[in-house]
Amino acid sequence: MFFHKQELQFKATPAKPDALFARRLQEVLGGQYGEITVAMQYGFQAWNSHEPGKYRDLLFGIGAEEFGHVEMLAITIAQLLEKAPIEQSEAAAASDPVLGAVMGGMDVQHAIVAGAGARAVDSNGNPWQGSYITASGNLLADFTANANAEMQGRLQVARLYNMTDDHGVRELLSFLLARDTMHQNQWTAAAAELRAEGREDLPVPSNFPLSQEYRDVSYQYINFSDGAAAAEGSWASGPTPDGKGEFTYLDAPGTSAPMPPATQPDERYYGTTPKPNIVEKAAGVVKDKLSTK
Amino acid sequence: MFFHKQELQFKATPAKPDALFARRLQEVLGGQYGEITVAMQYGFQAWNSHEPGKYRDLLFGIGAEEFGHVEMLAITIAQLLEKAPIEQSEAAAASDPVLGAVMGGMDVQHAIVAGAGARAVDSNGNPWQGSYITASGNLLADFTANANAEMQGRLQVARLYNMTDDHGVRELLSFLLARDTMHQNQWTAAAAELRAEGREDLPVPSNFPLSQEYRDVSYQYINFSDGAAAAEGSWASGPTPDGKGEFTYLDAPGTSAPMPPATQPDERYYGTTPKPNIVEKAAGVVKDKLSTK
Amino acid sequence: MFFHKQELQFKATPAKPDALFARRLQEVLGGQYGEITVAMQYGFQAWNSHEPGKYRDLLFGIGAEEFGHVEMLAITIAQLLEKAPIEQSEAAAASDPVLGAVMGGMDVQHAIVAGAGARAVDSNGNPWQGSYITASGNLLADFTANANAEMQGRLQVARLYNMTDDHGVRELLSFLLARDTMHQNQWTAAAAELRAEGREDLPVPSNFPLSQEYRDVSYQYINFSDGAAAAEGSWASGPTPDGKGEFTYLDAPGTSAPMPPATQPDERYYGTTPKPNIVEKAAGVVKDKLSTK
Amino acid sequence: MFFHKQELQFKATPAKPDALFARRLQEVLGGQYGEITVAMQYGFQAWNSHEPGKYRDLLFGIGAEEFGHVEMLAITIAQLLEKAPIEQSEAAAASDPVLGAVMGGMDVQHAIVAGAGARAVDSNGNPWQGSYITASGNLLADFTANANAEMQGRLQVARLYNMTDDHGVRELLSFLLARDTMHQNQWTAAAAELRAEGREDLPVPSNFPLSQEYRDVSYQYINFSDGAAAAEGSWASGPTPDGKGEFTYLDAPGTSAPMPPATQPDERYYGTTPKPNIVEKAAGVVKDKLSTK
Amino acid sequence: MFFHKQELQFKATPAKPDALFARRLQEVLGGQYGEITVAMQYGFQAWNSHEPGKYRDLLFGIGAEEFGHVEMLAITIAQLLEKAPIEQSEAAAASDPVLGAVMGGMDVQHAIVAGAGARAVDSNGNPWQGSYITASGNLLADFTANANAEMQGRLQVARLYNMTDDHGVRELLSFLLARDTMHQNQWTAAAAELRAEGREDLPVPSNFPLSQEYRDVSYQYINFSDGAAAAEGSWASGPTPDGKGEFTYLDAPGTSAPMPPATQPDERYYGTTPKPNIVEKAAGVVKDKLSTK
Amino acid sequence: MFFHKQELQFKATPAKPDALFARRLQEVLGGQYGEITVAMQYGFQAWNSHEPGKYRDLLFGIGAEEFGHVEMLAITIAQLLEKAPIEQSEAAAASDPVLGAVMGGMDVQHAIVAGAGARAVDSNGNPWQGSYITASGNLLADFTANANAEMQGRLQVARLYNMTDDHGVRELLSFLLARDTMHQNQWTAAAAELRAEGREDLPVPSNFPLSQEYRDVSYQYINFSDGAAAAEGSWASGPTPDGKGEFTYLDAPGTSAPMPPATQPDERYYGTTPKPNIVEKAAGVVKDKLSTK
Repeated sequence: MFFHKQELQFKATPAKPDALFARRLQEVLGGQYGEITVAMQYGFQAWNSHEPGKYRDLLFGIGAEEFGHVEMLAITIAQLLEKAPIEQSEAAAASDPVLGAVMGGMDVQHAIVAGAGARAVDSNGNPWQGSYITASGNLLADFTANANAEMQGRLQVARLYNMTDDHGVRELLSFLLARDTMHQNQWTAAAAELRAEGREDLPVPSNFPLSQEYRDVSYQYINFSDGAAAAEGSWASGPTPDGKGEFTYLDAPGTSAPMPPATQPDERYYGTTPKPNIVEKAAGVVKDKLSTK
Repeated sequence: MFFHKQELQFKATPAKPDALFARRLQEVLGGQYGEITVAMQYGFQAWNSHEPGKYRDLLFGIGAEEFGHVEMLAITIAQLLEKAPIEQSEAAAASDPVLGAVMGGMDVQHAIVAGAGARAVDSNGNPWQGSYITASGNLLADFTANANAEMQGRLQVARLYNMTDDHGVRELLSFLLARDTMHQNQWTAAAAELRAEGREDLPVPSNFPLSQEYRDVSYQYINFSDGAAAAEGSWASGPTPDGKGEFTYLDAPGTSAPMPPATQPDERYYGTTPKPNIVEKAAGVVKDKLSTK
Repeated sequence: MFFHKQELQFKATPAKPDALFARRLQEVLGGQYGEITVAMQYGFQAWNSHEPGKYRDLLFGIGAEEFGHVEMLAITIAQLLEKAPIEQSEAAAASDPVLGAVMGGMDVQHAIVAGAGARAVDSNGNPWQGSYITASGNLLADFTANANAEMQGRLQVARLYNMTDDHGVRELLSFLLARDTMHQNQWTAAAAELRAEGREDLPVPSNFPLSQEYRDVSYQYINFSDGAAAAEGSWASGPTPDGKGEFTYLDAPGTSAPMPPATQPDERYYGTTPKPNIVEKAAGVVKDKLSTK
Repeated sequence: MFFHKQELQFKATPAKPDALFARRLQEVLGGQYGEITVAMQYGFQAWNSHEPGKYRDLLFGIGAEEFGHVEMLAITIAQLLEKAPIEQSEAAAASDPVLGAVMGGMDVQHAIVAGAGARAVDSNGNPWQGSYITASGNLLADFTANANAEMQGRLQVARLYNMTDDHGVRELLSFLLARDTMHQNQWTAAAAELRAEGREDLPVPSNFPLSQEYRDVSYQYINFSDGAAAAEGSWASGPTPDGKGEFTYLDAPGTSAPMPPATQPDERYYGTTPKPNIVEKAAGVVKDKLSTK
Repeated sequence: MFFHKQELQFKATPAKPDALFARRLQEVLGGQYGEITVAMQYGFQAWNSHEPGKYRDLLFGIGAEEFGHVEMLAITIAQLLEKAPIEQSEAAAASDPVLGAVMGGMDVQHAIVAGAGARAVDSNGNPWQGSYITASGNLLADFTANANAEMQGRLQVARLYNMTDDHGVRELLSFLLARDTMHQNQWTAAAAELRAEGREDLPVPSNFPLSQEYRDVSYQYINFSDGAAAAEGSWASGPTPDGKGEFTYLDAPGTSAPMPPATQPDERYYGTTPKPNIVEKAAGVVKDKLSTK
Repeated sequence: MFFHKQELQFKATPAKPDALFARRLQEVLGGQYGEITVAMQYGFQAWNSHEPGKYRDLLFGIGAEEFGHVEMLAITIAQLLEKAPIEQSEAAAASDPVLGAVMGGMDVQHAIVAGAGARAVDSNGNPWQGSYITASGNLLADFTANANAEMQGRLQVARLYNMTDDHGVRELLSFLLARDTMHQNQWTAAAAELRAEGREDLPVPSNFPLSQEYRDVSYQYINFSDGAAAAEGSWASGPTPDGKGEFTYLDAPGTSAPMPPATQPDERYYGTTPKPNIVEKAAGVVKDKLSTK
């Protein structure tokens, strides 16, 4: 169960309206790595969790915080839009550079659809979607997904920080940056703890029998491009992070197989097959036909 | 530039057709973490790369391999579909349990749209989409995304391995499992190398000045749920993975702010505002109205 | 802010696993009118609200309940999937009718992607999306949207009730049905209250000056089909629900205007225009060409 | 069958081109609540209708009108785009404020994809999609959906009215406003008629046996937030709109159930389970590992 | 304007219900090449047309017919679903092979969402979307798109014909096949007429000055694969269909350019650049770190 | 298998950065008819191909070239974005017209998400999706789809050519225009060759027995609009392009059928049926109710 409290975790008070920045801020609300994503991702990971202990508790504990961040951003966006202009003709834009800039850069659906309110979309107006989230049931894989989400999220907030000079907005962003720092550290620690406890290890999933994979190519760097620089990396020689092998380097694939024969499905799929099933005309006709066009 | 060779990296020859498994296999071709995703993800990361050395070379080298995996899976799916049934009425299904099972479980668009061919979709028929990929320009964030993609991918292949007993298909899957093992190790090594070289570090992005984030909450576990188990984790006390702090544990938020006042946008957005702008009728009317319904 | 409590609002304990019903139940979790939709819809309406009183309070109060329903359904789906089969070849399906039925009817991503867990998708595997929600800033419009959402939602739950005979699942559905009954009544009452208080009225938005709409056609039923039955309805004669007019009936449109001239944009858009801009060949050539094909 | 007449229902002649407003107008053509939505929604409701009388006739009669509105808006948008600029470099924009404003604010696909033509998208370029429509077979639910669609639609047109001062466009909008007034009234009347005839009632679906829902909570307002204002509303006490109960108010949930045990699916899903299935290492190792990073 | 007539263009009366085939039939109603696509495509091409003569008239004339096909298919699907089963548990499926087959193969949203009605989706439940249509303003390009749409459409109907033995459904399909035959011929004829009249020609757009394209490679077949068979085709030598050149064959690209230097954007995008901007640690540390994992 | 070479097929060096044009160029990278579409389309057609000869070889040969075009455009976009501005407040925009124009017109996700890099989206930020491609197994249908794709693609590049005056970008576009010229010719030649060889013919699919289509309407132009101009076209009289009939012209449909009876599904779908299943109230109540509102 979720309970709501009519307070925010941190102050969110823009010094002035800014419809342009409102649009940009949508990215970290409703984008691929926005707050809706992490809130729902941690939620689904918890609900699907197969273990009832500290890891599920962690997911519940942070997931609910992220729903509060969704709220904080939505309310900030509404405040930034409070003075969104309603007169927006070409003529008006031409005579007023500020209005012209706002018209060009704002999310028009903020005005037309939401009446100066936030929306469940990213900074280009793409609706948030369920396919942004990851919840596989394997916690090492999922915590790596979570670490990535917090990295991408903090990166975007850092970029946004440089796109505004509004003191109030920057305060809010500095708070979000700090929480993303925490969450990057936390998922990194949780992933390490899973490995240290022997609960899960590289390669994920670690309880799939390695004998069933084709071990000959498990640690080969195979270069399908023509650069040589990647041979210098720690991924091309030396021990592997999973502690189970040694990297080797191949500058081209060492295995190959012939292209299988083309398939011949039931003829009632009406595909084009090698043997024409109506009387074949003389091949010479082709060029003639083309040349008359 | 890309060059194509009419061979496969590994043999891909199903022992027998299986339209049901063809559908399942679509997940690792065109799903969120399928081969199209990793091929395009590594491609865009390389094309957007700001550094011309070993890391971009690595992206090019692996990205091209993944395009070959796309091909290998598409061809396998077409082979599995080669005998996909064309007669599929309820009556037919009722009298033939095999056909009934196939009808229920196959992807009907494999038959109707592709004429027994593979498609750029996942196992539920959702088209692959560009929002599956990540390419931020920050390599530590992106390599973490890549490690996650290879973990989710190997996990899905491992599950698929148990959903078929076809020897030929299992051979192909054992090859893909091994390559996913390699790529999990490789991205993990590359992420570690970035940190060891001081190119990037936690928290990502590491070159954003920490003084501009609200450091008071950078290492606080704040529990928004009512479980106590998460307090036991390595994320609740002790040094943080970024080496810059100590985790602390709070069982409830330590900061809060009042809910900002509701916004009052231009009245021509026609939103509902606290002061009614037409003459307010007596409040007593409401109940009367409702009770007559 | 949202706080989580590790309890459910009502018991949700399926008597037995049922992977088929798990898929069906996804509709009311992640579908157009599922619990994610109402939770997010009431949330955004509250965050965008222009009035700080009882209406916003209502949105907050119910919105948080709906997030708990999301959780309750996700957990139920995971329980229904607990025994989801892992062996799913055509051969297996053919020899086991139960397995055959399950293979056909279950959501394959439940197994491959989520490892027997719930997902943020509908019963056909379409990801939930932000465009399902409505939050316009006009409360009469939005409360009508809410009433509709609760009607569609209860209708779907009622249908699902007849698709299972599992006692535990039916108990959960009977609880959701009752809450939908409450919420249908509540939004209906709230919409009536807005009108009774004079805050908003038909036609929405009621504070747009009626003098600026083309009043000649504001209450005309105009029949663009050839049936006569609709003339009998209360929408074809008598007073209108907004109390501002009388319905009239026209069996065909009373106004029309000529089709405007075709547009002639800049020729560098390379569209096909009425005046060919390269030398026109004799029209007689056309038929000759076609007949030789 | 549908027949087309090469006239418009009303004049649609912009006084001057305006590529910015063309983009905004896309919202009511191809947006969530645009004309394509209502045309298709009324169509599918009619085609799926289970009753052949006045209600289906109403759906046919209005649905065809809405297809004409689609046409009227598409043609207007093409006219507004007739002079859309083709030269659009940064340099050009910098030296010409009008061009700069247009470049920023116009839909670039209007130029690149459609060659100065309308598109089946909303004002942010999101393609129209089938999931915008509602057709459940239950007419009271669907007519409520229709009333909502007409409210949201009229609200958006009213906002657009204030975003242009073009006399010709405003005339068109004043016509659409009037038709939306009619359709709001009409669906409200039709919903009331269904109830008055006893065909359908609150709660929808009214023919589901109330005895099968958990009646204890059918009329309870349960507050999951910490505000007290909602207790003042007509939804918190007094008779309910369905005429079958009395509202009560609870300031917190009155029922709860323990969180069910975590699920334990087949181990071949490779999820993370409470009992590690590989040898567990000493827990003390964790902190060491983390601290060396 | 569109006018509706409560008749169908052809009889559409399934001999018996078939929920499985109802799902399949959705492909040609709401799929990529279904009737909604062609109806909307011809509509938008007409509304955006720059020429007011026979071509626009053709688009109007056929477009309205296609809206009638949408209706015909929707009504047929509703009839096929009339007896769609409501009891659908695993237990029921196991004991009844017909029910088991139907459960697996039907579109569950037909039952849960539409109450046994048609939907604006394809045979996998993907909602129809505006991005399926093409309307560029260039009629030769668009008529080619139309010819393709009718080819794909007829191909799908032909496949569906073999998936049912219902006499009534086959009659409907035989009618649609014939109309697709007509429309394939018609768009082919219209494309030829455009070329014969000199209105448009290959390469499209023909009024773009050829001198501005890099003519050296305008007729070169450049082989990026390692097969030699394509050299035998009429596209590898001889006159070109546009009548303006001769095909030549290259077995590898004849031009190339060095990879441009990696970009170096503003450092506040926090991308990973070649020169580390924090103190670089000794490179030797890397391997050590990895080996301890 | 695909192999990558770290060179480009042609030079791609913008003379100067231009974030506005970078956004526009996304259309031909990740749009409906962009390079990702043709690369993937030719790939899937090859992988699904039922014939192993020159046609599949052609698809492989060109498909790999198109993947190289994807790379060329992505790299060009990254170069155009290299100086994308990071300071983007309303205040900044107001005082600097260039910045104002750029802010309005650029893709904000280029900055926030990709850190000045290309993305797998179109010029409005819609992610590329698998439903853009066509691969049916029938080569005449698919080659027509390919010809259309190259026509739409060249049309868009031609429009883009006029939207920039950057010499370097124009050089790249002139190269792409030439390759599109080649590919239009090539697919046209390949389609003609299929027909000349008797492999496939109009109507597609040509091996479906014509006797099973309703031949009475196979060559009828049926006018569903009220214009007479289309009667003048070559599609209204004379021989048909498939060589199997004569066009005829009907100014209205010659066949029709009564609307089938409304469906009556299982009552547990809770749809609204003609016979109310709860006690019907007096019809007179309706008007009373409405008039009191």
